[in-house]
Amino acid sequence: MQIAVIGTGLIGTSVALALRERGEGVWLADSDPEAARLAANLGAGEPLPTRAHADVAVIAVPPAAVAATLAAAQKQTLARCYTDVASVKQLPVAQARARGCDMTSYVPGHPLAGREKHGPAAARADLFLGRTWALCPVPETSEQAVATITALVRECGAVPMRTDAAAHDRWVALVSHAPHLVAAAMAARLEAAPPEALDLAGQGLRDVTRIAAGDPGLWTQILAANAEPVAQVLAAVAADLAEAARMLTDGDPRSVATLLEVGQAGVVRIPGKHGGEPREFTAVQVVIRDQPGELTRLFDAAGAAGVNIEDVRIEHSPGLPVGVAELSVRPAEAGTLLHALEAGGWPVRR
Amino acid sequence: MQIAVIGTGLIGTSVALALRERGEGVWLADSDPEAARLAANLGAGEPLPTRAHADVAVIAVPPAAVAATLAAAQKQTLARCYTDVASVKQLPVAQARARGCDMTSYVPGHPLAGREKHGPAAARADLFLGRTWALCPVPETSEQAVATITALVRECGAVPMRTDAAAHDRWVALVSHAPHLVAAAMAARLEAAPPEALDLAGQGLRDVTRIAAGDPGLWTQILAANAEPVAQVLAAVAADLAEAARMLTDGDPRSVATLLEVGQAGVVRIPGKHGGEPREFTAVQVVIRDQPGELTRLFDAAGAAGVNIEDVRIEHSPGLPVGVAELSVRPAEAGTLLHALEAGGWPVRR
Repeated sequence: MQIAVIGTGLIGTSVALALRERGEGVWLADSDPEAARLAANLGAGEPLPTRAHADVAVIAVPPAAVAATLAAAQKQTLARCYTDVASVKQLPVAQARARGCDMTSYVPGHPLAGREKHGPAAARADLFLGRTWALCPVPETSEQAVATITALVRECGAVPMRTDAAAHDRWVALVSHAPHLVAAAMAARLEAAPPEALDLAGQGLRDVTRIAAGDPGLWTQILAANAEPVAQVLAAVAADLAEAARMLTDGDPRSVATLLEVGQAGVVRIPGKHGGEPREFTAVQVVIRDQPGELTRLFDAAGAAGVNIEDVRIEHSPGLPVGVAELSVRPAEAGTLLHALEAGGWPVRR
Repeated sequence: MQIAVIGTGLIGTSVALALRERGEGVWLADSDPEAARLAANLGAGEPLPTRAHADVAVIAVPPAAVAATLAAAQKQTLARCYTDVASVKQLPVAQARARGCDMTSYVPGHPLAGREKHGPAAARADLFLGRTWALCPVPETSEQAVATITALVRECGAVPMRTDAAAHDRWVALVSHAPHLVAAAMAARLEAAPPEALDLAGQGLRDVTRIAAGDPGLWTQILAANAEPVAQVLAAVAADLAEAARMLTDGDPRSVATLLEVGQAGVVRIPGKHGGEPREFTAVQVVIRDQPGELTRLFDAAGAAGVNIEDVRIEHSPGLPVGVAELSVRPAEAGTLLHALEAGGWPVRR
């Protein structure tokens, strides 16, 4: 298959990387030529030739730009069928209809995967591994187009889930759009907080507010495009929090206890972290000194042992002379690495 | 030093493990003998002997139980000085005073570290590494007791932060207690959600709601003990969310855009993994091949340029021949690093 990816941000470039890994041909285009070039440097594909004809075009642009991009692509017969990745579905479908797009070749889609970072450099071929990918064909969409896009979704490692645009939008309001605004509302309280308070921040606050780092412009567009379902969830959360605040002030923690219990019951209903296959690495912790060359020596030692470091995280505190490097390696290689580092005098811990 | 840890849950056992790793003697006790035995089996210490006399007693019990445990320990002269780890500080201080405890030997404390898991099995010796640990001595507390507990905190790898109980409680309401209830209120919406909606859950929802899995009984106690500061934060979050819901329904996304922007400004104020002052680093992105020795060559190149790599994150997908290493360096050194890497033929991007 030859696929054209229009829009080489986080999602578009990740789709391209995943398809390249499966041996597909990928062409790349973006309104920002630098973004397309970086994606190409990452091995995501080749620049889109002029007058190209692909099997599939993946339109990975913001929600409000999908219909115009689709119309332009169809006008030049860029592909035999088309999909998009916008996180709302009723808006692009309505706008595509209004523009007179060919709906038989268009399969509206939405991969449930993302990161708080954006741009091609944040892309990963495994971004969709085990994730749900919603497909919302309209009545006119041909079954052949649905079959082609379903195969593409599977090639990306995702699990296709066929539904309709209205149900999709209601569900993502609950599991994605409203949570984003809840995170933002909590994070907004930190904007004027004393620095000493922020020094007390732990992992919990970081997790609750992490997605609030997302692009406000893109998210305003998403939320406005799914306004009513999002508003319903937010109003319910706001009412629960206002009630909890009242009861705390009144010295009656019963409704707070109930909210905590219902919340605990809710969180355990979320399916496991990867949905699909979790890739397990073994972490080896090494105490390191905070000085130039220390990590080089550490990686030298790992390299000399023939061990490939899959990931590394460094934890250290200002003023402390040491930190901890956590090296992720394939489980089969952990023993070799531990042995080599211990032999080299590194303080290690599996 | 000989330390007695009273209460071998997640925090108590983690303190014990951290101190054992530094070669200290640790005695363990818990109202649940099984919990104390499990902690001992994990290598956290030995059972507390009868009529024992330790240097320090660490009281790691729920907030409402701190004063009674302190009074009992002081009655048998268990230690020369005492600290606790409860996440509210005014309540145990007031209750200890009311019970006539010796306040000169008591240094109220709170390590800002935790997990959504609890019990000794979830304990980790590195739980406190680089984390802030608040110490809230009262006017009567002796400087010698403060010095001893400060040294213990440093031995656990944490960064001591001296403040008073009232300020502490106000600050943790903002950065820990209110976020917990916000996470619970969002998670509570999932309790009755259709399974298809939950199939669409991504990492964002998991992060926002993760801490809502915490023990509702313990958290009700914590929230009730810090009611007014928590209620103020919750009321403000509830008002922002209710307003956002109204404006979405009215088709006016301006206040939503503002909330997202203020939220983004708030989240970036949370200190990075290094804690303390939000030290700003510049990220330099380098395309690397996924093979042994590649990172060594990269760090060699940085080291040869005299640049200290403060942190590194590696993004790559299994099967892809290249990835991106994101090197964090002091802003003043970014130019030097970029120049050196470009001269060495590395594909870089600031």
